[in-house]
Amino acid sequence: MIITLITDFGDSEYVGAMKGVIYSICPDATIVDITHSIKKFDIRQASYAVFSACKYFPRGTIHCVVVDPGVGTGRRSVIIETDKYSFIGPDNGVFTFVTGIKKVYEISYPGSSKTFHGRDIFAPIAARLASGSEAREFGSQMKGLKRIGLTEVKVENGVTTGEVICSDSFGNVITNIKGVGFKYGAELQFKVEEKSYKSRLLESYGFADVGELVCIINSEGYLEFAVNQGNASKILHANGGEKVEVMEA
Amino acid sequence: MIITLITDFGDSEYVGAMKGVIYSICPDATIVDITHSIKKFDIRQASYAVFSACKYFPRGTIHCVVVDPGVGTGRRSVIIETDKYSFIGPDNGVFTFVTGIKKVYEISYPGSSKTFHGRDIFAPIAARLASGSEAREFGSQMKGLKRIGLTEVKVENGVTTGEVICSDSFGNVITNIKGVGFKYGAELQFKVEEKSYKSRLLESYGFADVGELVCIINSEGYLEFAVNQGNASKILHANGGEKVEVMEA
Amino acid sequence: MIITLITDFGDSEYVGAMKGVIYSICPDATIVDITHSIKKFDIRQASYAVFSACKYFPRGTIHCVVVDPGVGTGRRSVIIETDKYSFIGPDNGVFTFVTGIKKVYEISYPGSSKTFHGRDIFAPIAARLASGSEAREFGSQMKGLKRIGLTEVKVENGVTTGEVICSDSFGNVITNIKGVGFKYGAELQFKVEEKSYKSRLLESYGFADVGELVCIINSEGYLEFAVNQGNASKILHANGGEKVEVMEA
Repeated sequence: MIITLITDFGDSEYVGAMKGVIYSICPDATIVDITHSIKKFDIRQASYAVFSACKYFPRGTIHCVVVDPGVGTGRRSVIIETDKYSFIGPDNGVFTFVTGIKKVYEISYPGSSKTFHGRDIFAPIAARLASGSEAREFGSQMKGLKRIGLTEVKVENGVTTGEVICSDSFGNVITNIKGVGFKYGAELQFKVEEKSYKSRLLESYGFADVGELVCIINSEGYLEFAVNQGNASKILHANGGEKVEVMEA
Repeated sequence: MIITLITDFGDSEYVGAMKGVIYSICPDATIVDITHSIKKFDIRQASYAVFSACKYFPRGTIHCVVVDPGVGTGRRSVIIETDKYSFIGPDNGVFTFVTGIKKVYEISYPGSSKTFHGRDIFAPIAARLASGSEAREFGSQMKGLKRIGLTEVKVENGVTTGEVICSDSFGNVITNIKGVGFKYGAELQFKVEEKSYKSRLLESYGFADVGELVCIINSEGYLEFAVNQGNASKILHANGGEKVEVMEA
Repeated sequence: MIITLITDFGDSEYVGAMKGVIYSICPDATIVDITHSIKKFDIRQASYAVFSACKYFPRGTIHCVVVDPGVGTGRRSVIIETDKYSFIGPDNGVFTFVTGIKKVYEISYPGSSKTFHGRDIFAPIAARLASGSEAREFGSQMKGLKRIGLTEVKVENGVTTGEVICSDSFGNVITNIKGVGFKYGAELQFKVEEKSYKSRLLESYGFADVGELVCIINSEGYLEFAVNQGNASKILHANGGEKVEVMEA
């Protein structure tokens, strides 16, 4: 059984401790690091990582997400069952983009540290699910899973409005705007917060000049701002939450 | 059989070479990355990573540690057998916190590079142990395993004295002070080297205001200085070895 | 079957997506991270990582390399069959140091994103090779694999001339000069581009003073410039491509 890990722990011994706990309970688990480099406490980036990586795994995979600024406080922990997967982690918005949800359980699990639920709650439950336990053994069904509030995408008078979801490890700035209807090669004008930029919509990074700011439809279908071999996030001062407007130039 | 790796190589091809060596000798090994982000040559941080991660693994796990500023010089290499595990690495203090030691062997292993014992000595021995070889095949028993000298924790006139072990990937500053006897919610005064600070002892990071400096009893029971969603190590200029004093404010 | 990954994705969800694709096609694959920290778009460093790590893996290993500034443009993708391994990735020089080549196939693979061939072409092909498919199912044989042009190493009037291949995660500066014929302990004079330095040729880093610039024959036999517990790459301003001259001082 595959257990994946998404955390903001960096490449640290805290990840190692979680793996040790999992193997001690379920020696046959296949543990897969999706990423541990979510920016510390960046729930938005975590939610996009969940969205863009988890769906490629085989049916039955258990996805464990630990980006958890509220650890040890009153925030709830959840197990989500979808038509293909189980998800385990804090109920703070990291599961915003999870689809196909069938049941959500609020975790009630005894005897843990207040500061490291990844090791003391999420890892052992993931391992026990992988060993055949049922989600309902770890809590009761609940409603009202927390989701990040994103500006709804709108098109008005030829202007598409949306929001930056997050930036990635290349510094590409990912928006929630999908299927914009612009043509490859078109010159676009866009605003991030109040600042304006002009750039071409290209099929891939390598078609741009080195250092050129471009618009890309990324591999998930979202509009993305990128700099060929550079870092758009730094240039646009955009990391998540910024308002975006796009129109043909 | 599980073989874990703790190094200061970063996420680099040197780690990959070690894994290749291991799989070539023991195709059935399960290799687990604990961390490769120990600060370069930081034996103290490595020793704490060994302490806080290795004990969560199943009995029989082989822990391989390569933080080795003295590689190729006269420093000894060791295999340690404890009641649960084997440890392999340089004898430079990285195994300071290993408990339950039954035997220590000084490694004598032929024909290797002078600069990469991780690949040429530690990885092949770990793989051969995982394949059923005995530690005594790789050297003779020895005494006097090297340990980091830490200031002994003392309580005098209500002041507890100790030392910073290291900081972690969140910038949390971990001391060797355990079971301090202060109550959650108490206002504490503490010194790191000669500089004084005041902060609350809280149950977890999330109870503090964002940016607030707090005292935490971490998940291993040690007193830790942390900044909620910030970096205490930078603020306190503490990375390991600094003298610490704590008292009720 | 082992599938290794070398990318410049950093520790990111893009790596996770590739792993999900592989496990979905070949559940029994053993996926091994060699490194994901190749400097973004640094084909030279990737080629050296391929050289210095891949050869330690067992016969039959499938090595997948995704450092790909030209993704989605006209650059070719290849499968290389050698006497021991398969290699998959873009034909941009990352396979410069691959030896024992028997056949090279130009990949022709349908229906993918323009921006993420790692997930949509290289990962599924690697997984299908691991499941028993043949390279010829994915393209036709080709000639003229792209290789990085490196200054040929020459010795003239006691001066050895060569080039920096790349720097590593320790900041060690690796040249293409091999078997220089200098003796350990010798004082060497060397130039990187037009700037001159003096240092000793030592057997390992730990024999130098902390902070001392030294010459080392690295574990692959190449001449390397290093600073004991420091970063030679920053001091020498050398990352790859710089001209190097070495002579006895």
